[in-house]
Amino acid sequence: MKMQLDCVPCFLRQALEASRIVTDNPELQTKILKEALAVIERFDSYKSAPEMGRAVHGIVKKLTGVTDPYRQIKQNNLKLAEHYYPTLKHYLFRRGSGLDLVLKIAAIGNNLDAAIYQEVTDVGLLDRELDKGFAICDHKRWEERLKNAKTLLIIGDNAGETVFDRVLIEQLLYLDVTYAVRSGPIINDATLDDAVSARLDRCARVISTGCDSPGLLLNECSAEFLEIYQQADLVISKGQGNYETLSETAGREIFFLLKAKCPIIAKYLNVAVGDYIFKFLNQ
Amino acid sequence: MKMQLDCVPCFLRQALEASRIVTDNPELQTKILKEALAVIERFDSYKSAPEMGRAVHGIVKKLTGVTDPYRQIKQNNLKLAEHYYPTLKHYLFRRGSGLDLVLKIAAIGNNLDAAIYQEVTDVGLLDRELDKGFAICDHKRWEERLKNAKTLLIIGDNAGETVFDRVLIEQLLYLDVTYAVRSGPIINDATLDDAVSARLDRCARVISTGCDSPGLLLNECSAEFLEIYQQADLVISKGQGNYETLSETAGREIFFLLKAKCPIIAKYLNVAVGDYIFKFLNQ
Repeated sequence: MKMQLDCVPCFLRQALEASRIVTDNPELQTKILKEALAVIERFDSYKSAPEMGRAVHGIVKKLTGVTDPYRQIKQNNLKLAEHYYPTLKHYLFRRGSGLDLVLKIAAIGNNLDAAIYQEVTDVGLLDRELDKGFAICDHKRWEERLKNAKTLLIIGDNAGETVFDRVLIEQLLYLDVTYAVRSGPIINDATLDDAVSARLDRCARVISTGCDSPGLLLNECSAEFLEIYQQADLVISKGQGNYETLSETAGREIFFLLKAKCPIIAKYLNVAVGDYIFKFLNQ
Repeated sequence: MKMQLDCVPCFLRQALEASRIVTDNPELQTKILKEALAVIERFDSYKSAPEMGRAVHGIVKKLTGVTDPYRQIKQNNLKLAEHYYPTLKHYLFRRGSGLDLVLKIAAIGNNLDAAIYQEVTDVGLLDRELDKGFAICDHKRWEERLKNAKTLLIIGDNAGETVFDRVLIEQLLYLDVTYAVRSGPIINDATLDDAVSARLDRCARVISTGCDSPGLLLNECSAEFLEIYQQADLVISKGQGNYETLSETAGREIFFLLKAKCPIIAKYLNVAVGDYIFKFLNQ
């Protein structure tokens, strides 16, 4: 998915928000904003929004010397998600373990996105969100593909979201599951450390994609990841960033599981902002 | 009031929105955004947000050749305001003509602001907004000053808002009222043409300030305006833009009448976004 002009002011806002997470120094904030503007000016040289996002957030890291500006937010989100974990498990116990429900739980985890919502203190609304249906749900295709599947690759998105994904994986333990995360800190996306904090390593093989963009760029991924990516019977891609980079270049079947959180993605998918999506694509 | 860093991404968003109002051509929109970025990069050379606003919106005019990009929006807002006019008059008739109520009506007119809300199709909510009190209301000082006043100057803001201001002026016809507007089109602010469309010339002397910034810059105003400004017994300044430029440099008593529409102004005034303000200042 090509970057839209609307992404440009949004990234500038993100640069400012990120600078404030790391420093209270207004001069340093101003410097970050200035350098972000210089990067953003070249917006038409980026192929996708996540690539520009990485460049913009890279400035914050470079100018502050803080390699993981969202570390505290990620830890808070992981803690919040762990707090919800028993509720989610109990919910499945009460309502039956239908795959639609469990996919929905994994999609709700996608709310823990600091780039868009800043710090979430209450996914809240858990009940309300659980009651919402999917606006797009290719679950028949999913059930069909699931019948003969032996291996599943999940391409992760945000740190706190990994706990919600654990609930999904725990329903699919008969599969050989690999969970792939960013190779380094970027916004509040999950890294290996975050995935281990979420205890994903107890139910899946956790690996790095080799890429630290907030949307997967296949040409930057490691050979190890690409082999798993090509050979997995099923691939679930989580979140907007991965959708933006993979929706037209995946080179294989993918199930995209996300919440449409910005008007651009929502328009592209022909849904409303806030809608949940489980979309099959074979590009 | 000094410009805040938050204004920077906000103006970039406004540049994009304004470009889309004037043209469907994505190449021209991209060109506007690029030139806006070049202007915005020098953000710390502007003394106030309205000055940068004028520069950013000036790019849209320059690159499209359209001198009044918000013309249609202003006309729609004026039409909408005229549609509400009888309701407002009837409301006053029913509720009594208390000055608080009529100040409130003038403040509600401040909702017709395309820079923040894009096109308003329904001030709607008229009843709900009328029921909301002022978060800051220096009405005692107003009543005190009003006792001995003979002349009133209103510094206007948005085009559609002028109709709401007419309701205020009609309650103060015993005063010699001057209504001052921008010297040329800027965003959806009122110009002489707009004020005449709102029939303000029937109840007030309508003049240009001599300045076409979306917040009054005294050093750019005409001698005619400055004389009236200095000599008026009462001055009401409408809207955020005028508050931003005048709140610290007015050089006289002013009553500021506005809705706090952005988080920066709201924080500065120590109120919530959406609150109504009638604030006396003597700087």
